[in-house]
Amino acid sequence: MFDKVALIGIGLIGSSIARAVRSHKLAGKISGCDISAEARAQATALGLVDAMHEDPAEAVADADLIVICAPVGAHGALAEQFGAAVKRGAIVTDVGSVKGTVAPAMAPHLADGVHLIPGHPVAGTENSGPEAGFAELFLDRWCILTPPPDADADTVQLLQRFWETMGSRVEIMTAEHHDKVLAITSHLPHLIAYTIVATADDLEGQFKQEAGDNVSKSEVIKFSAGGFRDFTRIAASDPVMWRDVFLANKGAVLEMLGRFSEDLTALQRAIRWGDGEELEKLFTRTRDIRRGIVEAGQAGTFRAVEEARAGALKDN
Amino acid sequence: MFDKVALIGIGLIGSSIARAVRSHKLAGKISGCDISAEARAQATALGLVDAMHEDPAEAVADADLIVICAPVGAHGALAEQFGAAVKRGAIVTDVGSVKGTVAPAMAPHLADGVHLIPGHPVAGTENSGPEAGFAELFLDRWCILTPPPDADADTVQLLQRFWETMGSRVEIMTAEHHDKVLAITSHLPHLIAYTIVATADDLEGQFKQEAGDNVSKSEVIKFSAGGFRDFTRIAASDPVMWRDVFLANKGAVLEMLGRFSEDLTALQRAIRWGDGEELEKLFTRTRDIRRGIVEAGQAGTFRAVEEARAGALKDN
Repeated sequence: MFDKVALIGIGLIGSSIARAVRSHKLAGKISGCDISAEARAQATALGLVDAMHEDPAEAVADADLIVICAPVGAHGALAEQFGAAVKRGAIVTDVGSVKGTVAPAMAPHLADGVHLIPGHPVAGTENSGPEAGFAELFLDRWCILTPPPDADADTVQLLQRFWETMGSRVEIMTAEHHDKVLAITSHLPHLIAYTIVATADDLEGQFKQEAGDNVSKSEVIKFSAGGFRDFTRIAASDPVMWRDVFLANKGAVLEMLGRFSEDLTALQRAIRWGDGEELEKLFTRTRDIRRGIVEAGQAGTFRAVEEARAGALKDN
Repeated sequence: MFDKVALIGIGLIGSSIARAVRSHKLAGKISGCDISAEARAQATALGLVDAMHEDPAEAVADADLIVICAPVGAHGALAEQFGAAVKRGAIVTDVGSVKGTVAPAMAPHLADGVHLIPGHPVAGTENSGPEAGFAELFLDRWCILTPPPDADADTVQLLQRFWETMGSRVEIMTAEHHDKVLAITSHLPHLIAYTIVATADDLEGQFKQEAGDNVSKSEVIKFSAGGFRDFTRIAASDPVMWRDVFLANKGAVLEMLGRFSEDLTALQRAIRWGDGEELEKLFTRTRDIRRGIVEAGQAGTFRAVEEARAGALKDN
């Protein structure tokens, strides 16, 4: 599909793309780039790319497709570094979780004739780094593209086929709509998960004191199967990536957070006044959403894949 | 271990105990009771018990161990119904997620010489009903017992062995401490999950309008792999059970909710003011908790078991 694909950032997503590109033979050559010397060494050792570079300008030379797989706060500086080296007619895309800031940050550094089409595969795990990636990460997951209004239709279609070949379903929308939808389906959940895990962590000291002995293992951890553990998975996600998401999508995140806080306050009031009817009504409504997710095939984790990998690692 | 075990309520937990008691041969006979005719019919059809009753007084007759597996709001009324029929020397326990209300609600209806030892297996899935249970539900999960200060030590030990034989690790603490620890590790997570799922549900209409077309499938569901789906699992839990939990543990839940809200407001402020350093610091701290949970063996779901069951169901 492409002669050369350049991956700028070779963490969980970048290394998964490298593996998927290889396994579906989507490019003649893959070049990689990462700011971290450790990530570069790991990617080289794993044989994920044909050439690894420290300088993004070297990595993008002659590439037909350039995929930025870095925290969204880095996009502008990266484009400034590699912009002049991009081949005319090449596609520049990304995988960031915020889309509104991508074109404003990158476009000024790209020449006419370079196609900037921001993208976002809605897929991931809580793990980070080149070793965490796997080729099936995008399988049956949605990838959102947010092409500018004047984007070349054929080029958008080519990028769409790239993601579809890696197993994704593609949806096209505006960057603004993307940022609102993801604020509720991804950014707010992460924010809340980070918060509750921190709140629980702060309580540990108190519990230990109350227990009146040297509780060696955290009670919060011990009894996490009661529901808490569901939050800790996403609260283990990459800190820098998520810092950038909240800074870049401030408006939509604060709006969703406002709505959530209102709803939580209403529920708090129902508890304080012992309004069991109100609680039961709400708790019944939320069941249907889960059913929808299960039916849409979006409920699963990558069990089979992870178990296969664990097995493979053990065998080696 | 017991001649006869009576299970008052035969939903997810009750039916799992029935299966585990059978598979570990912990009782000569199991009697069951449920308020729902459908649950009674299912439990009978599944062969989970030797005798199924509508009247709890009939179910507890001659039982050595009586386990209340009903929403915590029902404990008092149940004890009133069956209290006089309990054999002298029998153990009455329960599996409710709140412990402070159990003894005050039940003790007045139980004769001297009956051992009331409240309990709580910290285990579960989002599914409900007799068909949702499985014998391995308690495997490697903690079960908390909250015996009153004057409880008979041998009796507590017997109940502890009962849970240990079903695969649980047992911890003993006061009802008050239990309710505080579970408020943060279980009740608050459920409350937040219910809230965010409802907030997202309310936003659906707006998204459909914005998309400017007939989006048939919910965008919230479509893009739930971005983090939201982790919340929907626990927001699908039994509504009546959870209504009762929040009403029964009002004080501790409101306290934890207050702490959480403060922390969320601090994070909201950091986002509004673009304080990236503060965000990154918090997001880094929360990773360690997840590692602790994974190391403590409390991270897993019941994959193997659920897959085996799905296979078994298919085979039949």
